[in-house]
Amino acid sequence: MKKNVLITCPLVLLFITFCQDIIAQSRATWIWYPGDFEIWLSNNMQNRRTDRGTFFPVFWKFDSHYPLIDFHKDFTLSAPEEVKIYAEGIYNVKLDGQPLEGAPQQITVPAGKHRINVKVFNQAAVPAIYISGRTIASDASWLVTFEDKEWIDETGKTSDISATTWLNAGSWNFNSPAALPSACKLPVMPQSAVNVQKNNNASLIDFGKETFGFIKLHGVKGTGDVTLYYGESREEALNAKEAITLDRLSFQQQQAKDSVMPLSKAFRYVNMVTTGSVQVDSISMLYEHAAMKERGSFRCSDEEINNIYDVAKYTFHLNTREFFIDGIKRDRWIWSGDAYQSYLMNYYLFFDSATVSRTMLALRGKDPVTSHTNTIMDYTFYWFLGIYDYYLYTGDASFIRQFYPRMQTLMEYCLGRRNKDGLMEGMPGDWIFIDWADGLSKKGEVSFEQLLLCRSLETMKLCADIAGHQTDAARYNQYAAALKRQLFDLYWNEQKQALVHSRVDGKQTANVTRYANMFAIFYDYFNPQQKVAVKKSVLMNDSVQQITTPYMRFYELEALCALGEQDYVLKEMKDYWGGMLKLGATSFWEEYNPAKKGAEHYAMYGRAFGKSLCHAWGASPLYLLGKYYLGVRPTSPAYATYTVEPVLGSLQWMEGKVPTPQGDISIYCSTKEMKITTVEGKGLLRFRSKTKPVCKTATVISKGGDLYELTMGAAATYVVNYQSVKPEQHAKKK
Amino acid sequence: MKKNVLITCPLVLLFITFCQDIIAQSRATWIWYPGDFEIWLSNNMQNRRTDRGTFFPVFWKFDSHYPLIDFHKDFTLSAPEEVKIYAEGIYNVKLDGQPLEGAPQQITVPAGKHRINVKVFNQAAVPAIYISGRTIASDASWLVTFEDKEWIDETGKTSDISATTWLNAGSWNFNSPAALPSACKLPVMPQSAVNVQKNNNASLIDFGKETFGFIKLHGVKGTGDVTLYYGESREEALNAKEAITLDRLSFQQQQAKDSVMPLSKAFRYVNMVTTGSVQVDSISMLYEHAAMKERGSFRCSDEEINNIYDVAKYTFHLNTREFFIDGIKRDRWIWSGDAYQSYLMNYYLFFDSATVSRTMLALRGKDPVTSHTNTIMDYTFYWFLGIYDYYLYTGDASFIRQFYPRMQTLMEYCLGRRNKDGLMEGMPGDWIFIDWADGLSKKGEVSFEQLLLCRSLETMKLCADIAGHQTDAARYNQYAAALKRQLFDLYWNEQKQALVHSRVDGKQTANVTRYANMFAIFYDYFNPQQKVAVKKSVLMNDSVQQITTPYMRFYELEALCALGEQDYVLKEMKDYWGGMLKLGATSFWEEYNPAKKGAEHYAMYGRAFGKSLCHAWGASPLYLLGKYYLGVRPTSPAYATYTVEPVLGSLQWMEGKVPTPQGDISIYCSTKEMKITTVEGKGLLRFRSKTKPVCKTATVISKGGDLYELTMGAAATYVVNYQSVKPEQHAKKK
Repeated sequence: MKKNVLITCPLVLLFITFCQDIIAQSRATWIWYPGDFEIWLSNNMQNRRTDRGTFFPVFWKFDSHYPLIDFHKDFTLSAPEEVKIYAEGIYNVKLDGQPLEGAPQQITVPAGKHRINVKVFNQAAVPAIYISGRTIASDASWLVTFEDKEWIDETGKTSDISATTWLNAGSWNFNSPAALPSACKLPVMPQSAVNVQKNNNASLIDFGKETFGFIKLHGVKGTGDVTLYYGESREEALNAKEAITLDRLSFQQQQAKDSVMPLSKAFRYVNMVTTGSVQVDSISMLYEHAAMKERGSFRCSDEEINNIYDVAKYTFHLNTREFFIDGIKRDRWIWSGDAYQSYLMNYYLFFDSATVSRTMLALRGKDPVTSHTNTIMDYTFYWFLGIYDYYLYTGDASFIRQFYPRMQTLMEYCLGRRNKDGLMEGMPGDWIFIDWADGLSKKGEVSFEQLLLCRSLETMKLCADIAGHQTDAARYNQYAAALKRQLFDLYWNEQKQALVHSRVDGKQTANVTRYANMFAIFYDYFNPQQKVAVKKSVLMNDSVQQITTPYMRFYELEALCALGEQDYVLKEMKDYWGGMLKLGATSFWEEYNPAKKGAEHYAMYGRAFGKSLCHAWGASPLYLLGKYYLGVRPTSPAYATYTVEPVLGSLQWMEGKVPTPQGDISIYCSTKEMKITTVEGKGLLRFRSKTKPVCKTATVISKGGDLYELTMGAAATYVVNYQSVKPEQHAKKK
Repeated sequence: MKKNVLITCPLVLLFITFCQDIIAQSRATWIWYPGDFEIWLSNNMQNRRTDRGTFFPVFWKFDSHYPLIDFHKDFTLSAPEEVKIYAEGIYNVKLDGQPLEGAPQQITVPAGKHRINVKVFNQAAVPAIYISGRTIASDASWLVTFEDKEWIDETGKTSDISATTWLNAGSWNFNSPAALPSACKLPVMPQSAVNVQKNNNASLIDFGKETFGFIKLHGVKGTGDVTLYYGESREEALNAKEAITLDRLSFQQQQAKDSVMPLSKAFRYVNMVTTGSVQVDSISMLYEHAAMKERGSFRCSDEEINNIYDVAKYTFHLNTREFFIDGIKRDRWIWSGDAYQSYLMNYYLFFDSATVSRTMLALRGKDPVTSHTNTIMDYTFYWFLGIYDYYLYTGDASFIRQFYPRMQTLMEYCLGRRNKDGLMEGMPGDWIFIDWADGLSKKGEVSFEQLLLCRSLETMKLCADIAGHQTDAARYNQYAAALKRQLFDLYWNEQKQALVHSRVDGKQTANVTRYANMFAIFYDYFNPQQKVAVKKSVLMNDSVQQITTPYMRFYELEALCALGEQDYVLKEMKDYWGGMLKLGATSFWEEYNPAKKGAEHYAMYGRAFGKSLCHAWGASPLYLLGKYYLGVRPTSPAYATYTVEPVLGSLQWMEGKVPTPQGDISIYCSTKEMKITTVEGKGLLRFRSKTKPVCKTATVISKGGDLYELTMGAAATYVVNYQSVKPEQHAKKK
């Protein structure tokens, strides 16, 4: 493994035979108390939101980093070693518990076993260190504490037997002394406009598609004001009164100078209006992006689906920043429910675990818990569900062990807010969101919230086991089982063959909505009869209120895919996402209602351009195509075992890659042939065929009827000749 | 009241008839979330501690300010008003809930009822605002929240019915827009050395007495190093290897320049050692001080006591900085047990309530509680006791209402750590301090800790009532009563006529110490028989381990005073504090053992100069002389009622002032005459006289025997002619 890691870094490869020292030193990275930089950075990022030029902060508690942190690690050296020390903050250094004078930038650690402690104080930014010697390097193996408590013996001296909690340090990609975490900035790339229309003192600049970054004015000269009205649509940029974002500048300069806006913004169009003698040569932009590497891919016989996939990818790139955010224009915050979907898409495109864990840490903040995550009850639960998936896809047990206490306090907050029947019901300060949908009732005890709590409790059971808290695990397991029973006892309506929406005053309401029903399908809470019934009574029933946000479309289509309705879902995708493309969308929207016309599409929240035209939750085809068409999903943590179950829907062929911690799984599938290239781990290929399938390198096992399985080993290619069965038939036989 | 406030400010007085606007504007002050600036500033202050040039931070959790704060206030204006807005951080302004564009520095508020909201984000320093108009001004009446939660209605809009907790803003003395809280610095005053001894490349500079500040080197020129060794004693400054604090500097300059050290330090002597060609013209200092106004005073017939009082005053001045700190040389931290004594001294000298509340807020930090205050169990309890006294002396119920939740979580932390018998016993991470005393056992359940918890529970009962939490009040009251019973059931030893030191394995130990016994006297936990017995069996019993720190001498002498032993205590004071003066002390020490010789006095903690020669707890005569000789103490909050009970001890006469919220009470008392000038409130003069006393302006009531009382009204002078009784006689008759 170590060799592999080195080989993936070309810079290191150059030097590998020359200089052992440089290799060792290149391993060092800036480290901090885990979660602290994530909170600090997310505070900064979220506070870049503006509305009509006004700072627009979140309306919930922001936490802070701990300003005083102790870092340490024990080393056994075969020879003395010079070690360089960098810190963000005031610091001291101890060698074997003895403080060294001043704030040394370099120390010599003698041969033998030694402990280095560095203690850093910084209120403005996160205390962080970068330590680099021949073998000594700061990394996640260092232990850190904010000194929750420390044992002092009766002589008043600090004892070596410490009652302090030590965690593994947090880190990211700040791999040189000069790359200070506090100076963290995403990379930028210059980009030009594709069209400029001038009209007296105004210029409408079109960048050709939705984009994000800093507008740069070239050669500004003269005296007067410049106002930039940003628009995700042409209409928005041209509407000085309603455009959501703008910049107002004043100039008084003889010499032409360039001017870059201080804040990045989302736009396709910019309308620049000048007054006085001020003149601007031209306008370009600095595209700001998270430099994510695409690992997943998808191509198929349907060009519209390919376009949808590409625009979803671009939408997801734009919304993947320091964290997974919801939308790039108006909002730019981290919302747990939105982020939860981004995590899932990420597993099928970037597989960037760091952005997932960073986002989860930012959302969690610190104790004490004083409100639901983003103030929304469902969003608290999505935070737990995100951890469930994170562990399944990445196998990162260390994250769970380190942050189990924060999971526990958040869960206890929830459990402490149950009503007398043990159910979650809105209390003052709670926002029951569910979805943007007209007239959706949040009164009483909503079934959807109980279902999410149940799944969260199952997650806590799993995590308590991993963190070694068996008593907790048993308790959470018991709560989950009891709540699941209640879910069916209280909400299942035999006549409607569905979970009803809510209870009010202890009685079932007559209303059926899709939310709890579709989640109960892919969480496998229904028995097979219920699944079939709910598909008809709810999911395929037009008299049940329709979903208009891509947010809930995500789960609706997932539920249908889980029922084998890939053919139907493909049509829905083409209708819904294809519908946006037909309206000229270059990224997917926060909401789409085909019944609307023209600029009506841009309105939301009572504002003409309130809708975000680039919203992460719009990118869900990335997930659906990877998980339910290419059909790849882990069945144990980190893809130690996994299933590949390709389903073409109505496609003639498809091909693509799905990333895993061990590399990318490649799939090609047509109606006649499948070709799967596997990675480390044990894969199971499942498919349905009209004819007896043939694979030259492995044994195909008939599971009865048209269902076949093939066990796949590590890093090999399997070619199967077969004749595919239509997806509808799957569902019937399931 | 309002008029009085204005009149006390001479600047305002000048303009009072000229310009109503200026008066209004001068009322504005910088405001913040209460407790946040206090925490932020204390972090900075405490991290100025260095040891041999090395940063020496605390070893417990530091908290942070909330980085995002919403401020608001409702105003009803008779005319439109221009309002200036200043903020530390990124901010927005809302008028009646509507955001104004950009970050306006000035707004116009129309006539009528309006709400101003300002929301500020700042991670580096505390979000703070300064708002000033004709009538509108930022002050403690503004409400602030960190948005623990906020109600959002079903349309997704923020409702006016907010579930957020709003507190009154915190403030101090930053009364102009330019006086930024983040730039907070204590004032400095240039001072000269009194003596310089040169010896080759070394100069020993003597500033004549213990002092604190920034050393200034004048006219530094040439190339080489300058090292400054600081000494509270001459020996320390001259000992390059053992001096606790030092500064190392390197110069390479042709032109002579002045150089001021970046950190203030404590010293009387500085030994400057140079190398190379570097030359320094002269050395002075910038004395850094908290600009405290002395209100209390004391003078008497005994010049040694007068000297003790003056040196105690100077000691206390030096240790009163942004907060009450323990010692100015080595430590410079805020320790709850030390600060508790400073609060009490403060009530008899400065009566600076702001420094008390600021210190208590800094000590408390934020939730969650992860360890005892300063990691010390007794120090947690002193925090509660400090609030008890703070309320009694100042009557600041608002502090209690605002911070009751923090009191409660700290108390629940304690209660959660009781053992199976409901007693406090050291757990890993707990430091049981009590006192610096050889061989003092901390094992098992120490009686002193139970007694402090009992008093803390009584404080919680009081505060729960003030904060309107009756159920809590009843619960704490019940706990306190039960624990008091246990204290006597488990620790009172009939044979020894004392509370024993501890229980180990459920059994009383044979050891008797002074701690619990002396506290039980002035908390009035003993019955009269027990008091008399304990005085003999413990307090006046030389076979019980002697106290060597001024820290516990404070309580020992207080207990003796409470028993009427002012004569004995006066002798002790002259021995103990007078003893330090005879050794040349210019401020009082951390510890004093008359048995030691010469430089032995400076050693502590295994270091030759480990002892602090200027320690706040050394200044306790300020408190004893004010409370038990001048005899002034409040009997209900804020001196609404109070007692004046002058006791001369063996003095011929004494006179002085004791500050109260309503002004200073003046006392003159000789063996024959008393003259008391009162303030607002109802005073009770109590005294003992051999002869029938005479007062021309009020009625003296005989209480039987030699005890007399006189009820005193507001702001009047009472002259009483009497003949004093020796204090020993008080004790016998009490």
